[in-house]
Amino acid sequence: MKFSNLYVKTLKETPKDAEVISHKLMLRAGMIKKLASGVYTYLPLGYKALRKVEKIVREEMERAGSQEIFMPVLQPSEIWQESGRWDTMGPEMMRIKDRHDREFVLGPTHEEVITDIVRNDISSYKSLPMNLYQIQTKFRDERRPRFGLMRSREFLMKDAYSFHASEECLDNEFENMKAAYTRIFERCGLKFRSVEADSGAIGGSGSQEFHVLAESGEDEIIYCDSCGYAANLEKAESVAFIPEYEKELLQAELLDTPNISKIEDIAEHLGIETSQTVKAIMFKDIGSEKVYMVLMRGDYEINEVKLKNLLNASELLMLTDSELEDLNLKKGYMGPYNLDADNIFLVADETVLKIVNHTAGGNKMDTHYINVNYGRDYEADIIGDIRTVKKDEGCPRCSGTLSSARGIETGHVFKLGTKYSESMKATFLDVNGKSNVMMMGCYGIGVSRTTAAAIEQNYDENGIIWPSAIAPYVVDVVPANMKNKDQVALGEKIYTELLEAGIDTVLDDRNERPGFKFKDADLIGFPFKVVSGKQAAEGIIEIKIRKTGETLDVKSEEVVTTIKELMKKY
Amino acid sequence: MKFSNLYVKTLKETPKDAEVISHKLMLRAGMIKKLASGVYTYLPLGYKALRKVEKIVREEMERAGSQEIFMPVLQPSEIWQESGRWDTMGPEMMRIKDRHDREFVLGPTHEEVITDIVRNDISSYKSLPMNLYQIQTKFRDERRPRFGLMRSREFLMKDAYSFHASEECLDNEFENMKAAYTRIFERCGLKFRSVEADSGAIGGSGSQEFHVLAESGEDEIIYCDSCGYAANLEKAESVAFIPEYEKELLQAELLDTPNISKIEDIAEHLGIETSQTVKAIMFKDIGSEKVYMVLMRGDYEINEVKLKNLLNASELLMLTDSELEDLNLKKGYMGPYNLDADNIFLVADETVLKIVNHTAGGNKMDTHYINVNYGRDYEADIIGDIRTVKKDEGCPRCSGTLSSARGIETGHVFKLGTKYSESMKATFLDVNGKSNVMMMGCYGIGVSRTTAAAIEQNYDENGIIWPSAIAPYVVDVVPANMKNKDQVALGEKIYTELLEAGIDTVLDDRNERPGFKFKDADLIGFPFKVVSGKQAAEGIIEIKIRKTGETLDVKSEEVVTTIKELMKKY
Repeated sequence: MKFSNLYVKTLKETPKDAEVISHKLMLRAGMIKKLASGVYTYLPLGYKALRKVEKIVREEMERAGSQEIFMPVLQPSEIWQESGRWDTMGPEMMRIKDRHDREFVLGPTHEEVITDIVRNDISSYKSLPMNLYQIQTKFRDERRPRFGLMRSREFLMKDAYSFHASEECLDNEFENMKAAYTRIFERCGLKFRSVEADSGAIGGSGSQEFHVLAESGEDEIIYCDSCGYAANLEKAESVAFIPEYEKELLQAELLDTPNISKIEDIAEHLGIETSQTVKAIMFKDIGSEKVYMVLMRGDYEINEVKLKNLLNASELLMLTDSELEDLNLKKGYMGPYNLDADNIFLVADETVLKIVNHTAGGNKMDTHYINVNYGRDYEADIIGDIRTVKKDEGCPRCSGTLSSARGIETGHVFKLGTKYSESMKATFLDVNGKSNVMMMGCYGIGVSRTTAAAIEQNYDENGIIWPSAIAPYVVDVVPANMKNKDQVALGEKIYTELLEAGIDTVLDDRNERPGFKFKDADLIGFPFKVVSGKQAAEGIIEIKIRKTGETLDVKSEEVVTTIKELMKKY
Repeated sequence: MKFSNLYVKTLKETPKDAEVISHKLMLRAGMIKKLASGVYTYLPLGYKALRKVEKIVREEMERAGSQEIFMPVLQPSEIWQESGRWDTMGPEMMRIKDRHDREFVLGPTHEEVITDIVRNDISSYKSLPMNLYQIQTKFRDERRPRFGLMRSREFLMKDAYSFHASEECLDNEFENMKAAYTRIFERCGLKFRSVEADSGAIGGSGSQEFHVLAESGEDEIIYCDSCGYAANLEKAESVAFIPEYEKELLQAELLDTPNISKIEDIAEHLGIETSQTVKAIMFKDIGSEKVYMVLMRGDYEINEVKLKNLLNASELLMLTDSELEDLNLKKGYMGPYNLDADNIFLVADETVLKIVNHTAGGNKMDTHYINVNYGRDYEADIIGDIRTVKKDEGCPRCSGTLSSARGIETGHVFKLGTKYSESMKATFLDVNGKSNVMMMGCYGIGVSRTTAAAIEQNYDENGIIWPSAIAPYVVDVVPANMKNKDQVALGEKIYTELLEAGIDTVLDDRNERPGFKFKDADLIGFPFKVVSGKQAAEGIIEIKIRKTGETLDVKSEEVVTTIKELMKKY
């Protein structure tokens, strides 16, 4: 492609409403264009990068034995009613009526459609297992779409669904998909981590996320370099740090602590560590209407995802001030000891049990107890690990220490079990002729999000630094002086050779100064610039590596092989 | 792909609601699955064929210099209001509101979006011309979706849009696109015709359709084998057949013709040819509210598209019986002579002017005039070619004779001129620094429709006969007897060799009788079956050509080269 023909308009200034790097740079490099809030057109450069991600995804899904299909955007309401999600999906799901007033959904995901297909086509264990995937546009009406392609309302996903006669078979496919995802992100040239993720009520090891590492990532990842353990913060476990407490249990005592309600303040007031204190927070479960007092050691935070799973709650909300008053509870002075209230379930993090002589709220305004002890003074109804892990804690799997990083969730593999096959009656006859419900797995990759995440991970102040594998164009050939015939001729020759070698190349044939061209090249993020400059007459050109800034002087006949070598590395 | 792993469920019986061949066969061959009326999932075999069409389209569009983009499905109402189409698009356009009550359209086409993009990015003649294309899902809420992929509500289109500084440049690109379309349909292995089509008010040669020829086609195509002239029936012209009329103009005379209102009946009654009669049909233009009496020689039919263009009407409707009564007109007895009504415009087909002594309605119940003559007895306000061409008429371009065929419209290239660029202010500065409105062209291919049309053209009573170029799989390797080790081993060897040669191949490894396998193979439409049967031990296999039914005995080491040769032909 000659630059003069390429559809691209680069911008010097960053558009105002762009918040994250990938959004800013894709707009500035003319790769995407906003049509409406959270709705973007992919322009030629952006779409070329996206299509390269798609190609890698396709090849690895096929290699893993998945077969490609294409399911509709429009999905009739009936199947969503059947699965039960018609009522539980909120305003993020876009609904539309056709001219006959029939209700449809703009697919935010395709579990219902695929389950409907497979239950009609497959009736015997002989046709199982089966894995089908598609690359299709999804719709999610975000309340506040932002971050460009990172959180848009119309986006491209690869979603795969597998069906099995047994749990063991699902387990195998889950591992197969994890391996495929690992190959996909490796081939994209991205630094990533696969982490254990929360799988809600289903539990077990049935949920694994793939995160592209980037400082701008919305998610925190906890990992251990010694054993490879890694988990989303929501799910991460640790060996808690347990201080050396006193041995002797002292008598509980109520102290006046006027206007001292925060944990840090009470610890300072008493001259103790926050690990000697216990905080109490009140929750209610919208579903069961149960009310919980949740106890956490003062130096830890509650992990609401873990809490929700421990309680098997449908939706947890903190009590409001007026709800606290109704229960005669004093905000900032609540605690498990001498708690005068019925129908409150006590929930304790496991670290609370080990504290000797802890401080807790006095359950009267401006008071705290000291020397409270679990077991002697109170007992919890439910005990578990409900704390948010902190980096530098001990790894739960080995003797290593936990680190933390930020990531962008670009992939998710998930064991659905029988969630959809049961409600939608996807059954099969097993080897003994008995009817059974199929086991299901689902596997997603955010294709447009991966493209954006690649930029979040790979950029500098001058623009994008694409990994070669997903760069729209790998090489930008720049004749430094368009009036110098040698430079132009050599540039054109090398351009042709690179194209013939199957390398996506642009020839910057514009009548502009080299500095101007280099600026565009850096912004667009070509992994390599090939400059036909002063040494063109001697058949020498310069290769500049975008990522490192290195330059190499190369004989013109060695350009193709050199670029091929460099593509393996960058 | 091994047949035992392939996701396909073939059906013996034809589903009830399938009307056309492609719909029936795609359902029976497990290629598509209905999710809702006019909404289909592409299953692996169907999607593989579709993707092959897509690939050919992409390659030829790129070769023609068009650059791929990807525009959103969701389009904000504002740009449709700007182009003026928000109000003129009927219930076929699907509209949806987001959670903030903003109105969107599910893109039925993308002229507004592309014009919005280009007007923002391109400001100088230096960036013109530009041609951008996409392959994207379109939505059209048909009142009665039918014929499977032929007329569905959610379908795949390739749409391209070009922008130009001059009409001459647009003309060149129009020819460039026509050439690209010709290559596309040729490479798909389809018999097709490109025909002149109606271009509405814009007129000229600015609209060309590509039809895949098939007896089931909805459109009639008129063509001349002598000079290559071809046109959609809506647009087709001809040299009308003019009988030898009498020379002498006789006196008009009113006859009683009780209960004889049809042209054929009056001709028979009077013992004359229908070419000696003139029929009158009343129309009104919804836009201008003008009322027209349209006069046509009795042996021809009115072509409403030509009529609409001649009158520059917005929408023509025939008058209802009660509207006729209001005008004191007698249905079946209307005519141009002694017409007692104001504000009726007379429109005559050019053949009417040449009749000597024609019959016409008497404008009183149960009467007709004979010996009416144009010029002497009445004159028309507007004269033109408004008749529907009949085959065997004279070619308008040469001395040949017109033939007719049926076709399925799968492509359309169209000169838009300034229709969108004017209303949406897509301007550029020309070489003199003067602001000008861009010229535009648009170019569509129905990708899913082409896939279905390929079947409408290529099938027999046993199933589909795919052209190799777009067959989901080209070869089906069938070991005739799965218990015979030689046959199985040779089948597997050939299967591997074909895959290594890059030929999409299935190995039918099912433990079924050969007849059962062949039935599936014929239904699915593999262009070639490779049967490893009784001569396997001697290294001989049989190749069956689906299209001709021919069989060839081939040495096993020659299978790959033989198949490659056959793929060029079928």
